[in-house]
Amino acid sequence: MSEALNDLQRHAAALDSADAFAKHRDLFALDDADTVYLDGNSLGALPRHVPDRIADVVTRQWGELRIRSWDESGWWTAPERIGDRIAPLVGAAAGQVVVGDSTSVNVFKAVVGAARLSPESRDEILVDASTFPTDGYIAESAARMTGRRVVPVAPGDLRAALGPRTAVALVNHVDYRTGRRHDLPGLTAAAHEAGALAVWDLCHSAGALPVGLDAHDVDFAVGCTYKYLNGGPGSPAYLYVAERHQAAFDSPLPGWNSHSDPFGMTPGYAPADGAARGRVGTPDILSMLALEAALDVWDGVGVEDVREKSLALTDFFLECVDTYVPAGRVTSVTPAAHEERGSQVSLRCEDGADAGAVMRELIARGVVGDFRRPDVLRFGFTPLYVGFCDAERAARVLGEVLAGS
Amino acid sequence: MSEALNDLQRHAAALDSADAFAKHRDLFALDDADTVYLDGNSLGALPRHVPDRIADVVTRQWGELRIRSWDESGWWTAPERIGDRIAPLVGAAAGQVVVGDSTSVNVFKAVVGAARLSPESRDEILVDASTFPTDGYIAESAARMTGRRVVPVAPGDLRAALGPRTAVALVNHVDYRTGRRHDLPGLTAAAHEAGALAVWDLCHSAGALPVGLDAHDVDFAVGCTYKYLNGGPGSPAYLYVAERHQAAFDSPLPGWNSHSDPFGMTPGYAPADGAARGRVGTPDILSMLALEAALDVWDGVGVEDVREKSLALTDFFLECVDTYVPAGRVTSVTPAAHEERGSQVSLRCEDGADAGAVMRELIARGVVGDFRRPDVLRFGFTPLYVGFCDAERAARVLGEVLAGS
Repeated sequence: MSEALNDLQRHAAALDSADAFAKHRDLFALDDADTVYLDGNSLGALPRHVPDRIADVVTRQWGELRIRSWDESGWWTAPERIGDRIAPLVGAAAGQVVVGDSTSVNVFKAVVGAARLSPESRDEILVDASTFPTDGYIAESAARMTGRRVVPVAPGDLRAALGPRTAVALVNHVDYRTGRRHDLPGLTAAAHEAGALAVWDLCHSAGALPVGLDAHDVDFAVGCTYKYLNGGPGSPAYLYVAERHQAAFDSPLPGWNSHSDPFGMTPGYAPADGAARGRVGTPDILSMLALEAALDVWDGVGVEDVREKSLALTDFFLECVDTYVPAGRVTSVTPAAHEERGSQVSLRCEDGADAGAVMRELIARGVVGDFRRPDVLRFGFTPLYVGFCDAERAARVLGEVLAGS
Repeated sequence: MSEALNDLQRHAAALDSADAFAKHRDLFALDDADTVYLDGNSLGALPRHVPDRIADVVTRQWGELRIRSWDESGWWTAPERIGDRIAPLVGAAAGQVVVGDSTSVNVFKAVVGAARLSPESRDEILVDASTFPTDGYIAESAARMTGRRVVPVAPGDLRAALGPRTAVALVNHVDYRTGRRHDLPGLTAAAHEAGALAVWDLCHSAGALPVGLDAHDVDFAVGCTYKYLNGGPGSPAYLYVAERHQAAFDSPLPGWNSHSDPFGMTPGYAPADGAARGRVGTPDILSMLALEAALDVWDGVGVEDVREKSLALTDFFLECVDTYVPAGRVTSVTPAAHEERGSQVSLRCEDGADAGAVMRELIARGVVGDFRRPDVLRFGFTPLYVGFCDAERAARVLGEVLAGS
């Protein structure tokens, strides 16, 4: 095994040398050389320039300009402005993405908004049964509050489940647990053929692979910004409402920030045009402007190139796992086929191994992934700052842990 | 007038000398001696120690500990922990306040939650007709989504409007525009007598005067944290659900953070007990921990003492306005009676004066208040950092502006 190890390590070094994103790693605070950070699919690493930007927001914009910053520092327009920064990363033209609130709150806006665009006879909201739970819980509430019912469907069965009763299909682009990428163009087209609308959750895809919201005629989408977009812990989420739906979008959370004349402070609600209709209350400026700063690392980066590196990284990691991990100890639940894979690898522990304990030991040895009950080890590969030597080391240490050495 | 001026200035200096909170001003970044900041009822000033605390959150907690901070830096429990810091300021025992989301989103949770605790025959949601608009817009959505209708009522008529059809009364404790304080104990008791529930919006009272949520049996309350609580721009709001309602509280936004076992990630929703049931999605940690730091300025401060200074300040400001402002140019729309006054003074411009232009000129001369259409000048008095000399100067400059000098 030592020869294979050397081969893999040499190969990893060669891949890192040829990596066009190798220089990008320096943009991030990743100075702990003893750590391989493979949890960027849960919390992205800190871009190095963000602390200074936040210090300016706190000390000068809030501390000195105070209330004037709503205009002079561009606070008021931040939700749409930052939405337009995210838009190209998810394949959306400007004016369709607005930042604010949590992903859960945006799922509520999107599912209710989509349901309200459907005739009442369409009384079903299809939700992928393996979804991140919050989507299902919130869809249940949205269904209850719009006179619909949720129908949980395995993603593979979604096409067959679409029909004349379907109002909305809510699907995760990439499954948080398995890393499986679902067929966004195909399922969106199938939903439309059935007369339904498609709402996509991009939490585990935006920033890691092309999404193509406009190109594939997606109706609504939501996503978080603290994973592959590195916006910081709990940074605000975003809502995409396709331009063709904006004029009819009827938000269930019509806060004053979404009013056409918010400072008119009139008792009657009149919704703003465009992306601003998805706003609700006063935006959380510190978290939002940290996100805005963090997005600078995307300047000049093409998502197609990110995807190419992501697939190379996860391919290589799977190869290393095959080599280093004793046979039968783990099974990848992430699809081998590229078109079905996101930017993470999830390994199920076999033989009754305690996956939680395995992950704790990995972390103790400097390989940071995470654990999803009952038996899944998740390793996220953020192409902007994870390298091939990281992947090799992670697999090697996993092999050592599982071999009990 | 020059003798009166000297009297007022001497009086102001004497009041500042005797002010127990004078030392508190040093806790805030208010070094611009040429500015009187009377807009803390819109955006509270920056507590001096907050930038260092935020730098630690960004650089060490996010940048170095990364994902570990969810446990090790107490991120996960922040919403309830910070709720318990706010609780004593609004007269609530621990375990009933949770921080997160915007005020608008919390109004939605509270009004829907309260409506769902009422029989369907109670089909009216009373909303004070002079409310901050977002409360009315959101109440309208909550009513629509729970099969109720909104009945706008002038706050003075609320008692008479309560009846067997009332499910919920949503009232602002202090009116954002006029600074009028409504009778929280009396209206809450009247709502209960009518068999209805009371939801209070504390945006313009929390941190400026005693609220007494528990003492007055309030059912639900919401509030922002960026005004008198100085939490920073768009810092997260809070939700109070009285302990007696928590077990039956049925949130319209049942995100995974409110699940009894959030990391079980089960498809079925089972709500957490206690304040956590009011959570939704992943909390915006940077904004939230800025708020937590900002709350340190309340250590050892009694809200009753704050109220006493607030009334003395607004009394004195009104006296100075009487003296300095030419007769007939402004009328106070803030009640003279202490029990009906919040912590701001709102002056209506008479004689067709352009209040927006007046405020711009005030700001140019270093007196920062704000303007609410069509004709109101608002001056907020934050007792922790506004002094009597500030009040005197603000009134004097207002007099100069209105005299055209």
